[in-house]
Amino acid sequence: MDFQSINFQEKLQKFSEHWSPKIIAQMNDYHFKIVKVMGEFIWHDHPETDEVFVVLKGQLEVQLRDGVVLLNEGEMFVVPKGVEHRPVAGEECHILLVEPAGTINTGDVTSERTAANDVWI
Amino acid sequence: MDFQSINFQEKLQKFSEHWSPKIIAQMNDYHFKIVKVMGEFIWHDHPETDEVFVVLKGQLEVQLRDGVVLLNEGEMFVVPKGVEHRPVAGEECHILLVEPAGTINTGDVTSERTAANDVWI
Repeated sequence: MDFQSINFQEKLQKFSEHWSPKIIAQMNDYHFKIVKVMGEFIWHDHPETDEVFVVLKGQLEVQLRDGVVLLNEGEMFVVPKGVEHRPVAGEECHILLVEPAGTINTGDVTSERTAANDVWI
Repeated sequence: MDFQSINFQEKLQKFSEHWSPKIIAQMNDYHFKIVKVMGEFIWHDHPETDEVFVVLKGQLEVQLRDGVVLLNEGEMFVVPKGVEHRPVAGEECHILLVEPAGTINTGDVTSERTAANDVWI
């Protein structure tokens, strides 16, 4: 079997585009994805699943309809399923996402931000 | 709703014992746990699930029956379900684990290393 570690920085160096999650690992039917973000995303929710954000670099604001969660490097947040949220980053921010395989980044909303959900890096 | 970020360092400062995972977050039916390890764990496997290790600090060796995976800070590894493994750390190492709620740290093996699987911190 081919076992090897996955290095976040090494994977992050392989792309530069924003809001385009790349799969780096699978655990059961869940994907671990990395994504670079900057600026404002769109409001959306995931009716079927919670979603985990872990900040690897920078600062992420997760706006909610009744509040906001500020995430710094070394911090994580679980967006509960069905809760509308909008990620915003003033400067480039690197994130690790954990969510079921097949999850769409814009949830039930289709927009120019909607990205492929099956790209491995 | 009470939304807040989870800071790994803040959680890690709340305990010192080794090999005793603490739950810091839940995503669907999965738990995110932090654990401090040092020395050799026991050989075990998890017949029903993959298991994710993310090294937050230090260096972890995941020994497998036919190889070894060395993990540094900022690296992760997915131990496939049913694959026997033994974590080893020469010096104290801090780890983030992701696995289904209820997963036992020693898998099907019961030993003095077997820890509670429901402790939140």
